[in-house]
Amino acid sequence: MTRIDLSVTAARRALGSLVSMDESDDAIVARYASAVWSHLVEPGDSAAGRLVAGLGAVQALRVIAEAAWTDAVDPRDIVEGCKRWLPRLDQEAIALGLQRADRAGVALITRADPAWPRQLDDLDAHAPLCLWVRGDPAVLRRLQPSVAIVGARAATSYGEHVALELAADLAGGGIPIVSGGAYGIDGAAHRATLRAGGVTVALSAGGVDRAYPAGNADLLDRVAATGAIVSEVPCGSAPTKWRFLQRNRLIAALSTATVVVEAGWRSGSLNTAGHAAALSRPLGAVPGPITSAASAGTHRLLREYGAQCITSAADIRDLLGLSAGPALVADTFNPQTDDSTRVRDALSVRAWRSSPDIARRAGMATEDVEAILGLLDLDGAVTRGAAGWRLAPSAK
Amino acid sequence: MTRIDLSVTAARRALGSLVSMDESDDAIVARYASAVWSHLVEPGDSAAGRLVAGLGAVQALRVIAEAAWTDAVDPRDIVEGCKRWLPRLDQEAIALGLQRADRAGVALITRADPAWPRQLDDLDAHAPLCLWVRGDPAVLRRLQPSVAIVGARAATSYGEHVALELAADLAGGGIPIVSGGAYGIDGAAHRATLRAGGVTVALSAGGVDRAYPAGNADLLDRVAATGAIVSEVPCGSAPTKWRFLQRNRLIAALSTATVVVEAGWRSGSLNTAGHAAALSRPLGAVPGPITSAASAGTHRLLREYGAQCITSAADIRDLLGLSAGPALVADTFNPQTDDSTRVRDALSVRAWRSSPDIARRAGMATEDVEAILGLLDLDGAVTRGAAGWRLAPSAK
Repeated sequence: MTRIDLSVTAARRALGSLVSMDESDDAIVARYASAVWSHLVEPGDSAAGRLVAGLGAVQALRVIAEAAWTDAVDPRDIVEGCKRWLPRLDQEAIALGLQRADRAGVALITRADPAWPRQLDDLDAHAPLCLWVRGDPAVLRRLQPSVAIVGARAATSYGEHVALELAADLAGGGIPIVSGGAYGIDGAAHRATLRAGGVTVALSAGGVDRAYPAGNADLLDRVAATGAIVSEVPCGSAPTKWRFLQRNRLIAALSTATVVVEAGWRSGSLNTAGHAAALSRPLGAVPGPITSAASAGTHRLLREYGAQCITSAADIRDLLGLSAGPALVADTFNPQTDDSTRVRDALSVRAWRSSPDIARRAGMATEDVEAILGLLDLDGAVTRGAAGWRLAPSAK
Repeated sequence: MTRIDLSVTAARRALGSLVSMDESDDAIVARYASAVWSHLVEPGDSAAGRLVAGLGAVQALRVIAEAAWTDAVDPRDIVEGCKRWLPRLDQEAIALGLQRADRAGVALITRADPAWPRQLDDLDAHAPLCLWVRGDPAVLRRLQPSVAIVGARAATSYGEHVALELAADLAGGGIPIVSGGAYGIDGAAHRATLRAGGVTVALSAGGVDRAYPAGNADLLDRVAATGAIVSEVPCGSAPTKWRFLQRNRLIAALSTATVVVEAGWRSGSLNTAGHAAALSRPLGAVPGPITSAASAGTHRLLREYGAQCITSAADIRDLLGLSAGPALVADTFNPQTDDSTRVRDALSVRAWRSSPDIARRAGMATEDVEAILGLLDLDGAVTRGAAGWRLAPSAK
């Protein structure tokens, strides 16, 4: 049976500078066990999630590495999981992963750390076992509220413009912006946030030591300089398709609300939206021309997923519950459907008309017309003369 | 007290060719009384609606013209109404209105006529007392289903393009298109319907003998040639603001569903949408760029009025209940979130890999990986060699 050395000495050696000065021996071993788990599982492995939640990372590792059976967890999780996890239980390979993190100045954040973002617990057994953070881990605790602004890599200039405007407005108002670091909408959201001096967090599908996509390396460096790049897979990990899909669940879970700016009919950002909906996080979608393929996905979200129609940063603040609801609009939908409209309709700016004449033209009682003419007179909307009433030219 | 001659002779003389050959004397007098009522009231007068519904047009007219009180209706309707209606009870003026209709070949449609569109009864006391129709009155009974396509006069080329496309598709499929005859979206909807050989109906705020707007006179002539122009106000009536707002309620009430293509923040077409919502008629709105003021109103409908997001004629057929609901979309929101994605992620098109190696890379059990490799082999997605497995280049 594969073994792993869970002594304090081994843990301290493997973690290098990933431990802090004041950590207890037990905490160091627990941190090391979390790091090991991160190397064993693919994101979203609920059997691992249940096992670690039930036993703690150290004991869970002992159970699988030493076949130390326990009644505290469902044995099926152990049997099934071991088949997946044990082939990766390679102490040398794990040490290399930790060295990469150490060299890249990447922090390892576990559930025991104050920086751990509690909103991830909404993922239950699918929550990540730890987070690898390039940048400032403290920003992870400042993401409530925050907004995920995501969308197509193949964005149009319209979509990028909108992402820039929305992110700049929100970030300028102190709301952190979460996204996926990709080309197109994601990149525009990060860039505008940095320009506005705001906090932005990029969730990475692969290891945070690898800039992906490479063309966004400079942008990601700037994200890490003031915010953070975050992943649940260890340094050196490739960004596989599976990890992209699971990364999307972290974007949705970390943010208070998710807004999709542009998305093709089968865009990956619809997957992020699906995670937000599954987590009951508020979901918004920006409409666009129905003739634009890059908006077909956001229109699906409006039609099929009950996403809120987002047309401004104010709409997003509504989504976050940060502003009063929309103003009463009844007046606009029935503009001036009152008698004064009919009296105005019956008046002329040129011809003087008597109140009975106005009443006949308006199809109203003369006494009612006279009452309204009095009010319109006070407003300066009508003029009274010897021959009757006339509409003031400015009131037409 | 003002009087009106309700004899058969007077009715026949006033109506001219507005009566048909086989009409009984009673029917002719009732038709004349409806025409008179149409001259007395402004659209949407619920007191008149209740009085005429309760007593019939003839008796209701006698009550107000001859002060013949009755217990059959609420006396307040009579007292209040008389103040509005009697100043317009001018037999000469009414005769002139009927002559205009006669000369313009306009038909008078009352509730007693087979052409009367029963869906207007949903307006209850606010239903029109009669309809003036230029064109073919029979089309009024062919508007279930039909779609109102309305929107801004100041439409953009995007909006006009969309209105043309939607109307052409629906009309080509035999669905009549109702609109308001205005510049912009309305005109585009009528034009595309005519071009597609479909039936279109224009609701007019003023008398149907007056082309409004004058610039659409040719278009309205063509609408009348195969469809109809309809109004509840008599020939010669000016299109006042009040009558526009009430005309909007007829657009909503005549149609099965209302779709707003473009609308400014305070567009009159939002009033039409409000009437559709009040009547519980399905309501759709076409999104557009959030940077376009001409779409601000449709986005309000999506946000605040629960309008359906319309991106195609198929979406409108959904709105009408004429097609199956949207296809299941779960697959797209979680594209290939299954184990085969993880196996594919772990394969290379260049390097041969053993199944335990693939299992370790995928974070899966070897036996599960082998089962999936077998399926992928059947699909031609992978190649099996002496050294293991490789992804087929076409499957990448």
